[in-house]
Amino acid sequence: VSDMDTEIREQPGIVASLAAADSTPYGEVCRAAKSAHVQFVLYIGRGTSDNAAVYGQYLTATRAGLPSGLALPSATTLYEAELNLRHSLVIAISQSGETPDVAETLAYAQTQGALTVAVTNNISSPLASAASWALPTSAGIERAVAATKTYTAELAVLALLWATWADDRSLLADLRETVPAAMQQALESSDSVNALAPGLVDSEQLLVVARGYNLATALETSLKIQETAGISALAYSGADLMHGPIAMLDPGMPVICFAPSGKTQGSMLQVISTLRGRGVRIVLVAPESALALLDPNQRPGSQTRKGRRKEKDLEWVPLMEVQEVLSPLVAIIPGQLLACNLAVARRRDPDRPRGLSKVTHTR
Amino acid sequence: VSDMDTEIREQPGIVASLAAADSTPYGEVCRAAKSAHVQFVLYIGRGTSDNAAVYGQYLTATRAGLPSGLALPSATTLYEAELNLRHSLVIAISQSGETPDVAETLAYAQTQGALTVAVTNNISSPLASAASWALPTSAGIERAVAATKTYTAELAVLALLWATWADDRSLLADLRETVPAAMQQALESSDSVNALAPGLVDSEQLLVVARGYNLATALETSLKIQETAGISALAYSGADLMHGPIAMLDPGMPVICFAPSGKTQGSMLQVISTLRGRGVRIVLVAPESALALLDPNQRPGSQTRKGRRKEKDLEWVPLMEVQEVLSPLVAIIPGQLLACNLAVARRRDPDRPRGLSKVTHTR
Repeated sequence: VSDMDTEIREQPGIVASLAAADSTPYGEVCRAAKSAHVQFVLYIGRGTSDNAAVYGQYLTATRAGLPSGLALPSATTLYEAELNLRHSLVIAISQSGETPDVAETLAYAQTQGALTVAVTNNISSPLASAASWALPTSAGIERAVAATKTYTAELAVLALLWATWADDRSLLADLRETVPAAMQQALESSDSVNALAPGLVDSEQLLVVARGYNLATALETSLKIQETAGISALAYSGADLMHGPIAMLDPGMPVICFAPSGKTQGSMLQVISTLRGRGVRIVLVAPESALALLDPNQRPGSQTRKGRRKEKDLEWVPLMEVQEVLSPLVAIIPGQLLACNLAVARRRDPDRPRGLSKVTHTR
Repeated sequence: VSDMDTEIREQPGIVASLAAADSTPYGEVCRAAKSAHVQFVLYIGRGTSDNAAVYGQYLTATRAGLPSGLALPSATTLYEAELNLRHSLVIAISQSGETPDVAETLAYAQTQGALTVAVTNNISSPLASAASWALPTSAGIERAVAATKTYTAELAVLALLWATWADDRSLLADLRETVPAAMQQALESSDSVNALAPGLVDSEQLLVVARGYNLATALETSLKIQETAGISALAYSGADLMHGPIAMLDPGMPVICFAPSGKTQGSMLQVISTLRGRGVRIVLVAPESALALLDPNQRPGSQTRKGRRKEKDLEWVPLMEVQEVLSPLVAIIPGQLLACNLAVARRRDPDRPRGLSKVTHTR
């Protein structure tokens, strides 16, 4: 068993612990930001943590009503732009806390008047020291180079922070119980994911599509597949896909679609209908209710309930439904398992992707 | 000759005209935004216009010292987030001005207290009507579905706006003369680009890499190659590439690297050195000075001056050097020509990518 597989399976427990832990630091950050009249949130992250930041951006809009952006590290580290960051909250996300340009950009933001927060798995890292508040992801040491448990832990910390801001008790309650249970179920019903790998092992390219909160899920699934399985996976929002990239979809090309729940589900199902007309091979990660919406005339049989239904052009990976804002914590699990399975099927070591190390030194 | 090819060749003239036109509207926007104490800029765009917005973000940081973000249309159109946009400048970019969710998001921003600007090629569009100021791209009707001349016109309008903010006269002067001349030269010395197509025609995947201002160039080159040639092209910043995707680079995989000038050039040349160690096939789009930095021991011969030097692992596409902040207007031209050539070589119609229309209806 690979470290990556082991760490994927630790996730429900880590999220449950984070949700049960002392929430004082979240309250402190929110109080400070509100009394500083923060107008805008800037996220800093690279790779997996950048994908967590995309989730953070949607939370920031829906839970705090604030606009946000992803930092452009080279604007400050290379071009030496003088940013005015008064009234900004800057949130840097990094598993190791040691990527130099992330820590440097946060330290710079501090000097420019921003309130600064580090979300990191290493509370004694340079990044944690540079920030006014450090919010630990408490996922334990991550041995695999491909980040999995620290990704969902980052999502959980961001959800806790913004739920605290909005006093969203339903989110806080679901993060404690419903979400870990749904994550556990995604791990236990992994047959449908395992069944995918043989059919995808020879694909040199595939697409991953989602919308809204789960745009992060599409980005992170494609990154995991790139780094562990070495397949050229492209991620798109369902809306952006229609602006050009749809032209490159040849019949038979695999397209992984996430439609876990909520307001984006309808628009994802429209995207899927368009894709089916083009003969691509769809993998739909969604609860059974979404499947029913897609094919209203088709009654699910016993095969469907096990999540192994395979039609000519659509394979289904079932998910337990949770409220949409928390669905990225559950929906990423099939994506991680698929990346890990594909790596093994392609005779690669999922724990040691070629040419990567755990801390990336970029400026 | 395709419309796409014709429109690519119109670009130097369009940029020169935009730079020579009345600058009153730019001054008005800047004065209004400064007196409203704008703290933050939000860009709205999809597809090609989203790539122009990435360029806009770097300009906003370096010319105005303001943080910025890309809007999340689904946060407002689907999740109905209540954004506080007082002290925000919202800039929507759209060739047609008719993409419903772009116009809707801008109209929403207006109601939330933002100053709003439309950058569009259709001054009588719903988007232009909804905005407080409309800045025309004046590129004439674009017939090809793949946007080319409206992309560089969008870049030029953004450069004019932020140069006006900073009173950057060197930028304004270069946009009038040096840049159109360098664009013209890129069109005239297209032999080196034409020479690439036969070697890339059978590639099902390739990578496009750049940094800083030219991250937009990488994103737009990959989008053009996807939509016209149907090749799965991935764009990365040089820094992000090291965080995972580098693991999927097999020997022989084509990687197009942009290193046109300035402060990011050194970091791009480092990326290229790393890539050469992995045996990938590099296409370097850069002035001759960058080539000299890469191989300090090698003297360029006469073959080099024509831009047709071909080493075992590196092909070179020459560019005339302009100041880095304006280099995306020049560097995109080889990217556009390559996409158009590759489409023809793959027996596709560059003017009518499969499954695309000129206005995209998404919500």
